Order: sequence, then C-alpha cells, then structure tokens
Amino acid sequence: MQQATRVYLDNAATTPLSDCARGAMQPYLSEVYGNASSPYAVGRSARMAIDKARQSAANLIGAHADEIVWTSGGTESDNWALLGVALRALAGNRETRGHIIVSAIEHHAVLEAAATLREIGFDIDTARVDGQGVVHPEEIARLLRPETLLVSVMLVNNEVGTIQPLQEIARVVKEDSDALIHTDAVQAAGKIELDVVNLGVDLLSLSGHKFGGPKGAGILWARRGVKIHPLLRGGGQERGRRAGTENVAAIAGVGAAAQEAKVRPNNGVLSELREHLEAGLRAMGATINGEQAARAPHITNAHFADQRAESLALGLDLQGFAVGTGSACASGAIEPSHVLAAMGKSKEEARAALRISLGNQNTRDEIDELLAALTVLTKKQDARIRQDKAG
Amino acid sequence: MQQATRVYLDNAATTPLSDCARGAMQPYLSEVYGNASSPYAVGRSARMAIDKARQSAANLIGAHADEIVWTSGGTESDNWALLGVALRALAGNRETRGHIIVSAIEHHAVLEAAATLREIGFDIDTARVDGQGVVHPEEIARLLRPETLLVSVMLVNNEVGTIQPLQEIARVVKEDSDALIHTDAVQAAGKIELDVVNLGVDLLSLSGHKFGGPKGAGILWARRGVKIHPLLRGGGQERGRRAGTENVAAIAGVGAAAQEAKVRPNNGVLSELREHLEAGLRAMGATINGEQAARAPHITNAHFADQRAESLALGLDLQGFAVGTGSACASGAIEPSHVLAAMGKSKEEARAALRISLGNQNTRDEIDELLAALTVLTKKQDARIRQDKAG
Repeated sequence: MQQATRVYLDNAATTPLSDCARGAMQPYLSEVYGNASSPYAVGRSARMAIDKARQSAANLIGAHADEIVWTSGGTESDNWALLGVALRALAGNRETRGHIIVSAIEHHAVLEAAATLREIGFDIDTARVDGQGVVHPEEIARLLRPETLLVSVMLVNNEVGTIQPLQEIARVVKEDSDALIHTDAVQAAGKIELDVVNLGVDLLSLSGHKFGGPKGAGILWARRGVKIHPLLRGGGQERGRRAGTENVAAIAGVGAAAQEAKVRPNNGVLSELREHLEAGLRAMGATINGEQAARAPHITNAHFADQRAESLALGLDLQGFAVGTGSACASGAIEPSHVLAAMGKSKEEARAALRISLGNQNTRDEIDELLAALTVLTKKQDARIRQDKAG
Repeated sequence: MQQATRVYLDNAATTPLSDCARGAMQPYLSEVYGNASSPYAVGRSARMAIDKARQSAANLIGAHADEIVWTSGGTESDNWALLGVALRALAGNRETRGHIIVSAIEHHAVLEAAATLREIGFDIDTARVDGQGVVHPEEIARLLRPETLLVSVMLVNNEVGTIQPLQEIARVVKEDSDALIHTDAVQAAGKIELDVVNLGVDLLSLSGHKFGGPKGAGILWARRGVKIHPLLRGGGQERGRRAGTENVAAIAGVGAAAQEAKVRPNNGVLSELREHLEAGLRAMGATINGEQAARAPHITNAHFADQRAESLALGLDLQGFAVGTGSACASGAIEPSHVLAAMGKSKEEARAALRISLGNQNTRDEIDELLAALTVLTKKQDARIRQDKAG
C-alpha cells in the first residue's frame, strides 16, 4: 500500500513553505487583491508588499533593492540571463553571434538556454569539471576569448552540492575579457554565505521555493550598470526589465522567506545532520559523490555498489520517505545524471545515485529512520541480485 | 484622508480571487508542498492537481488537455508566442528573419515582444483599426504575404472591450498564407464564448487572474501539431514545452477559476450592469469609446469633454472607488493610450478616458454610487475649468 510522505528529504527539489512565508502571502490572496501597477488604494497596498519583499531579497544577497528583478522562478532567471545577453548582442548587430561559456554541471535551465543559443548560431563552450564536481578557474581561462559575451557557472550544484570557486572564476574572467558573469545561486540561498559584492559576478539567479518561499517567484539580480535585453516585455513593471502583472502573494512570501534565510543561517544545524547521515551511509558501504569538494550543507549525493537508485527510492516512497534520484526537473528522464557523468562516474554509478537533501524541518530521528530503512532495502536488493546471479 | 478601496471597478486589471480558487490553492500552500516533477507521494499529489487543472482549462476553451501549457501569466504567453515563432525560424535558418503582423491595439506584451523581434531584424507590420477599435480582415489581407510567419490579433481589447472578428481574420490568413495565428484572449475568458475550434486560431493566451484565479499562472494554448520553439527551457516540465518547477498552488487556483468561468458564464448579469452604467454615463454627457462595436460585457471606456481622467480617478480613489485610466500595465506612463490613438481619438480625448470594468462581485448599488460620485466630481471640475477661464 502506498502512503503519504512522512519524512521529506528532497529539499533541493523544493522546500515546504515556511509558516512565516505563508503568513506573509495570505493578505494578497484575499483582501489585498489589487494589481500592484494600479494607482488606487488596493493597488498601492500590493505595491508596498513588493517593495518590502524586494528589500528583504536584497538584504539576503548584499545587493541594492533596485538591482533585484522579480521573475517567475529560477528557470526564468537563468533563461533570461543567457537569452538577455544574446538578444542584446543581436539587437546591436544582427549579423553578430558571439561566444558563451557554461559549465558542464549547470542546471538544465542554463544548459538548455545555451542550446537555444547554439541553435540560432551562438558559439557555446562547455567548461569541464574535476572528479569532485568543481569547475577550475584555469578551465575557464582556457576557454575564454577576448570577445566572450557571458560565462555562466553555478554557485552550488543542485545534484551534488559542490560549491564553485566563483570569486576566482570572476577574477579570471574580468582580467581577460569584457564578458559578463552569471551564476545560478538557486541552491546557495539560505545555505551558504551569499554576497554579490564578494562574489564579483554580474548576474545571479534565485528561486524562492528553494529557501522556504512559495513556488512562482524568483529573482534575477543584475549589478547596477549591467545591461541585458528584457526577455518578457509588455507593461512597464519592474522598471521595464520584466513585464507581467506582479505575482504579489508569491513575491511577499519569498520576501518573508528571504528575511528568515538571512536571519537564521542554518549551516551549523544542517551540516551536523548531514555528517550524521553520511557517516551512516558510509557505514553501509556507500560512496559520497563530491565529498572532497567544498559543499553546501544540505545536499548528499551517494551511491551503493550494485544498487539501482530508482528501486531504492521507490522502496523508500512506499514507506513514506521522499528522496531524490538526480534533480527533480529531470525526473522521468532515462538519461543518467549529466553532473555525475561530467565528474567521470560510470553510467552504473550514476544510475545508483540517490540525492538526499535536508531542510530546516528535518530531525536526527528522521535521518536514523531513513538509515534503518535503507539498510533493509539494500540488503533485500543484494539478496535479489545474488539470487539472479545464482539462478 | 485616503481610504481603502470599497468599490472595485477595475476588474480588467485584475479580479479578486474567487473563494473557490482560493480553496483550491490552499492544500498546495501547506501539506502538499511537493515538487510536481518528483515521483514520490507528495510529488504525485501535486502532479494530480496540475493535471486536473489542465483539464478544467481545456474545457473552458474547447481544447484538448494536452494542448494546454502552463506559463507564469498572459505576458509570458504572449511573449512566448511571438518569440517562439521567431526562434523556430532562426533555428531553421540563421540568416532568415521573416514577417509578422500585429494589430495596433494589441496589449503591450504583444507589441513589445514584436519590438524585440524588430530589433533583431524581423519585419513587423502593424494592422490598423477603425474608429470603433476593430481590426478588419481586409486590413490583415492587405498586409499578409505568402511568407508571413505569424499574425497576432487579440480577441477582446483590454482597454475598450471590443471583440475582434477572429474567425474571419483566421479564414483570410489560412487562405492566403502558412502563417500561424495567435490571439491574446486574456480579456475574453469567462466573459464571452471561447472555443478554439470555432475561432480557427493556432495559439491563444490566457491569464488566470483575469477570471477569478490567482496571479502567477497563465496558459499558452497551442493547437495539436503547431510547433513553436520553447522560450523557457530546462527541466522537462510541460512535456518539454515550458520548463520550471510548476507553480502548483496557482495552477490549481486557475483550474478552479476556469471551471467556474465555464459553468457560470456571466455575460447576462454583467451586460445588464454595464447597460445601467453606460446609460448613467451618457446622461452625464460622456462618450463611450467603441460603443458601436461588438464588445465584451465587462469593459466600459468613456470620456467626458474637458475632464482629465487622472483627476477623476484620484477623486474616486479618495472616496474608495477603484477605476482604471488606460490599462494597469501602462499606468504611470505619460503617453496617452495607444488603443484610443489607433481609434483616431485626440490626445485630449485619450487623456480624458476612464476604464470602468466589472466583475462578478459588483452590484447595481455600487454602480449607482459610482455614478453619484462621478456627477459631483465632474461638476466640480467643470466649475474649476470655468473659473480658470474666467480668471
């Protein structure tokens, strides 16, 4: 018999909505229904909520409020960063194309936006990573050209949690080119220190529902003076940078979540939980992917020899545990993880990989429960494999 | 002293969230927090909500569920329709550009997306309208070329409410070209009969918050077999047509609102209310813009000689009434309405125009209150103008 999810350990796919965020949304789902672009009372109240949320989001990443543009989520932000740079280049010179670098372990939102640009004639280079899932600044230097338009390297990988050396990469890029630097920081917010000035990047994507906010609102931060072409045009919302009636409730929720993520950085608690989890996994013979790299505190990617992640995840689901196999966005895909492939893992290793990602609501007891369930499941699978081989 | 909005008559800017839609959203803002692309229990529940909403949306417009793609709203849908056609053309042949026709009274989301395409080399023609705000099929025929890629003409204009002869336009386009036809039907849903088969179009945009749903979810309907390039790419959501973690709560809310809009077509009630409103306005000497055209039942656009709409709207706001001046998206803009300009109205007439738009919650008493308030305000302004002239 199927049962509801009791122990949720896929927080990198989406986090439960925080009480604080839910509370912040409620007025804008009821009495404050106005269009934030309307000048009368119920519109002005909506506008104020957006401005307040914008300031909270700016505080989270050390930015100015006027650099924050609300989007529909991380995917739009990533797509906009790449397409915005390309459209600006094309609008300046219709014959031009140009050179763009993305890393091999980017989220599909970056990789697929890059694919669109390749299809219309842009020159896309993919930066390799090492066996721990880290992009080296030297690799970016190798690919960089004086005319490169954009370099996009994520801050925290969504499958293995590795932190990329963005400061060093930014330094290399700025020294040797006029390229803009974009980082998908979706998995970083609320998990590691996040300061756009320190990072030295030009564009940064965030997604509200990855740090306790609701689905439906994300951010593209663009450093003052950085110009990209708007992607969604129309009304003059977001000072002409992103059109469309503002999703007031979602934006208010993300603002509240940003405030929480800033005030209560949960590194310590999450790191301790994860240490406990990984010690248990290692004791069961699992390999932790990317374990020698600097990692954000909430993601563990592990594989057991001779196991299929899908079978394990299904067995766990039947007992009320939710864990990931690869990223949620690519679920249903037959292809093994492009991230693990880039790290040099075999297809078998990639197919065996589970992603277990922690959130504020998780407890040590839940981790112990998961480890106990996994112990039973892996033994059952081992027995089945032995039987198959014997039979 | 300012006061809260008591009488909301700007439903074309956004509608209050219906109780039914709010109820449909709540589970997905609390216990059903899963990512709809995740295979475990709390993800599957989210997925089911989206599929149910997709069917409701399909029912609203006489479509197949698999033709409905969820977007972040009408602006994204409009931009995607235009950019999707253009990207597909460019991906097929990087040197190609191509010809696109939009009407002069389109929403800014269409006009500005067309502007992006013009900037990167596409050839954009703008179809004129008559004095009543109607695009004639002959005008489309005049501009059409065998190689035209796309014709975009809205179904119901958002400022004056005029209904466009889409069936006839579609016939002309299909006879003389291979162009796709897109219609922004944002103001039509729940207001006039809406059947994609009857209309004969290929692409159609909807926005949930214009018919009782929440902000943050819209639809691009694409007829089976119609291929455009995805705009937001990444994860495989929406069968590869629109990436990004699904905004489950908003989608569930729009689905519920679509069901209501289908079951309870409010033409009759709204039409009666509007007749009452317009009779009152005419008695005060107002001109109703586009009054001789077929119009959706919820929008009245009127101007009084020698009045400034902004002053009237401000005076009404102070008394707790919300009405529009132009569309909400363009509010704050100095430019007078591009729609009224295309209809041949003078700048003075355009600056005098109020948009009063009705919703299910409005009552005859509210209309009487508005008319009484407007009578006092216009007399005051008249007196001031006489004084100015005398002084």
